[in-house]
Amino acid sequence: MIKTPICDLLGIEYPIIQGGMAWIADADLAGAVSNAGGLGLIASMSADAEWLRGQIRKARQLTDKPFGVNIMLMSPHVDEVARAVIEEGVKVVTTGAGSPVKFMKDWLAAGIKVIPVVPSTAIAKLMERSGASAVVAEGGEAGGHVGDLTTMALVPQVCDAVSIPVIAAGGIADGRGVAAAFMLGAVGVQLGTRFIASKECNVHPVYKEKILKAKDINTIVTGKRFGHPVRCLKTTFSRELYSMEYNSGVSNEELEKKGLGALRLAVLEGDEKRGCFMAGQCAAMIKEEKPVKQIIEEIFAEAEELLLGGAKWVKGR
Amino acid sequence: MIKTPICDLLGIEYPIIQGGMAWIADADLAGAVSNAGGLGLIASMSADAEWLRGQIRKARQLTDKPFGVNIMLMSPHVDEVARAVIEEGVKVVTTGAGSPVKFMKDWLAAGIKVIPVVPSTAIAKLMERSGASAVVAEGGEAGGHVGDLTTMALVPQVCDAVSIPVIAAGGIADGRGVAAAFMLGAVGVQLGTRFIASKECNVHPVYKEKILKAKDINTIVTGKRFGHPVRCLKTTFSRELYSMEYNSGVSNEELEKKGLGALRLAVLEGDEKRGCFMAGQCAAMIKEEKPVKQIIEEIFAEAEELLLGGAKWVKGR
Repeated sequence: MIKTPICDLLGIEYPIIQGGMAWIADADLAGAVSNAGGLGLIASMSADAEWLRGQIRKARQLTDKPFGVNIMLMSPHVDEVARAVIEEGVKVVTTGAGSPVKFMKDWLAAGIKVIPVVPSTAIAKLMERSGASAVVAEGGEAGGHVGDLTTMALVPQVCDAVSIPVIAAGGIADGRGVAAAFMLGAVGVQLGTRFIASKECNVHPVYKEKILKAKDINTIVTGKRFGHPVRCLKTTFSRELYSMEYNSGVSNEELEKKGLGALRLAVLEGDEKRGCFMAGQCAAMIKEEKPVKQIIEEIFAEAEELLLGGAKWVKGR
Repeated sequence: MIKTPICDLLGIEYPIIQGGMAWIADADLAGAVSNAGGLGLIASMSADAEWLRGQIRKARQLTDKPFGVNIMLMSPHVDEVARAVIEEGVKVVTTGAGSPVKFMKDWLAAGIKVIPVVPSTAIAKLMERSGASAVVAEGGEAGGHVGDLTTMALVPQVCDAVSIPVIAAGGIADGRGVAAAFMLGAVGVQLGTRFIASKECNVHPVYKEKILKAKDINTIVTGKRFGHPVRCLKTTFSRELYSMEYNSGVSNEELEKKGLGALRLAVLEGDEKRGCFMAGQCAAMIKEEKPVKQIIEEIFAEAEELLLGGAKWVKGR
């Protein structure tokens, strides 16, 4: 068994967190990941508090193990959602797409462990000063909303910058990525794309199939014009969106209209023409849909062998 | 000591290759890296065969250990340079910026080991079929000319795709990066930026200072409009170039003119206004100019400790 301070901090068996993917990370997926010994997350995305409360209660029925909520800080309902996690007794909150500082005092007072997703050392330090229990250092090879720094460059730098535990995210889909993250100084990992192609994930079958068929060069980053880059699979839609962004004849309004609801269309309807299938660069490493428990067990069995076997390269000691 | 098949393949002590950085990777740097037990490389860049022959002969005077030449395949002098490495008895060639297939037969016949730098699994497979001895899988966090895939995502995928040894590059500046690369399946590493800030590197002091002072978010990728992205440090110049690229009012000719000779100005003159200071995302991890020998020894001492210590996370076995 691989045990790190993240296991103790969160009361989980394996040091793995499931990514808080909008429209994807629901009670079913979170419950499955928590039942398998990781930390499942429900994504609050832009939903209101009522929806989130329903999901939290559903997850409680699915598992008696710890799970968390990912709060998307740009949500129009962020204030009510931030209160709801306190009122519902959620124990772990991860945050993305903004600064959680204004909510930290109340969350910490409620005993919530806060784990912000960070794209740089400066933000990691700010989060540590604000009372975060750990940070997720997420590299730009991840799916969905991404930063510039990659996992290989970001994780060691964040580890040098803060004293709280660092969880690595971005580009990790198997035990090799987990073992590499540990070598970089992380004591846990967050995986998103790998869990989309799990039995318990409720996305449309077309979404899973697209991940299983992806090649290494099949992701693209759109949204740079607005300063909110998003990594997704290359499709006719995402290529069009990409071209439009770099075409100054296309207005911001047209561009926003084109992108609106595209993730929802991918997740719920598997719409190949208008859907945005968010995924990380590791999509091509995922060949089979599996139950969450099997995914986690296989990843950590592989990581364990690699960590035990690293000494094989060292001669004469 | 860390020993891998790359050490045997290339006759070197440490499984590390110095990046073939244009204007930077000269005989002095290559000689120092080879003397320290790595594989030094001379960059042919766009120079003619006469210049390269001079550098190769100079390197021979500096070291009796193996060194190689990096051949930039878009060079106007590529044909004569490709012949010169044969005539000069060079034992190892790495290649970048194109396909070396047309030269492979002659190089292999001359007993040269060819190690192409690859950005994807498809190109890695093609190189293996063409007779490459190994490949460098270089992630987009590297400095200079870069691909899309990051080290964390690219290296394991290339390892799955080919049977020849894989050398990881991009985002590696210390022992953590080396140990992580090994966990991903690589059996060697290539470092560029770390060697720019070495005593033996002949770049202008301003260039070294800029690397030593860089923060994590201080690199930027320009050149996307032409499909030849280049990662360099953020400076007034590179920010301007970046803005111009996304401004459709700026013609390709204007853009090319602005970029022309910018790396040379950075390397030779430390020109802060017109120079392009190429560097990878790991620049911020480099805090001190050191002799090449010390750099390599420290990196592998750290990697060795990490590889020996990886088992500490595994409990109950």
